[in-house]
This record gives sequence, structure tokens and C-alpha cells, in this order.
Amino acid sequence: MILVRRLLGEVLRAERLRQGRTLRDVSASARVSRGYISEIERGQKEASSECLAAICSALAVPLSSVMREVSGQLERVEHTSSVASLPTPARVDADVTNVAA
Amino acid sequence: MILVRRLLGEVLRAERLRQGRTLRDVSASARVSRGYISEIERGQKEASSECLAAICSALAVPLSSVMREVSGQLERVEHTSSVASLPTPARVDADVTNVAA
Repeated sequence: MILVRRLLGEVLRAERLRQGRTLRDVSASARVSRGYISEIERGQKEASSECLAAICSALAVPLSSVMREVSGQLERVEHTSSVASLPTPARVDADVTNVAA
Repeated sequence: MILVRRLLGEVLRAERLRQGRTLRDVSASARVSRGYISEIERGQKEASSECLAAICSALAVPLSSVMREVSGQLERVEHTSSVASLPTPARVDADVTNVAA
């Protein structure tokens, strides 16, 4: 099962690291405990809406862009899962007549 | 403050109603209590990632599309808020020389 909290945590962590910021820094700015942010980043705790808004504000990224990134990652995982669950296609490479037809 | 759970609840509720389905139906299909789904739809409770996945599965909508919809709504709200917080522009309609310059 795809878990939103895991992808959300990865997106938040990637953004924090991209900015070269520490958990301590974001924690102080967001007024959210360092342990809680760390658990959210690792996908171990659900972020409440208030907490998510505070972290995004501390990172100066719009909530919408974080959610869009999560949505995009979900889409890729869903696509991979649906492709993986498709039946294996019959081999057609021995019969090229269809290509030219 | 924009709350993700409120927008998420609205998106889930709109999708359920679009399908003409009842809380009872989705609850049974998702194996999530009716009261909990109702609270999620009204933005009163955060949906856990597992619960969100179960509701999306019951509604047969990809999680990614629900999150994309939430992201889009967030973007609109953020845009409206930022426009609303812009300083009122000085009146320029009395001086049209700038336009022609």
C-alpha cells in the first residue's frame, strides 16, 4: 500500500536538505518539536494539517507545491504498480508482419 | 490558515456525491467507520494514510488524483490570499503619459 505520509516525509526532507537546513533550524522556525519533524520526514508519524502548514511556512514553500510533488510521486508509483500487475504480453518479436500491415 | 484536511474532506465528499454513493456504502467498502469518514469529509479529523488509501480504493479513484485536486485547490486559495495581501496599487488612470512613453 502506498502511504501518503511516507512520500510527504520524503518531499519535506528533500526540500529541507536542498535548502541546506537542519532539523533544529526548521523546528525552531516552525515551532514544531525536532523529534516530531524527524518522525514526519521518516514517514513514521502523520503530520497534522496545522503542523504541515507550519513546516511549509518555515521552509518558505507553498503547501500546494508540496502536495503537487506528493501527487506526482503517487502517480509514478501507481503507474509502476499498474504496469507491474499487467499480464505479461505474448512475445510478438518473432512475427513482424503486424508492424508492416 | 489553509488546512489540508478541510480541502481533502471536501474533495472526498464531492467525489462520493458525484458517484451518488452514501456514507454507509463507502464505509462498508473501505472498512472504515461511517462516523470517521463523516468527520474526515467535514475536515474535523485528519485521515491517516491507511484510511485515506482505503477510502480512495472504495471510491475507485487514484490517491494521486485526489491529492492533485487538493493541490490545485490549495494553489487557488494561496493565489487569492497573496493577491488579497498585495498593497493597493496607486491610481494611475488619471495619468496616461506612462502608457504612451
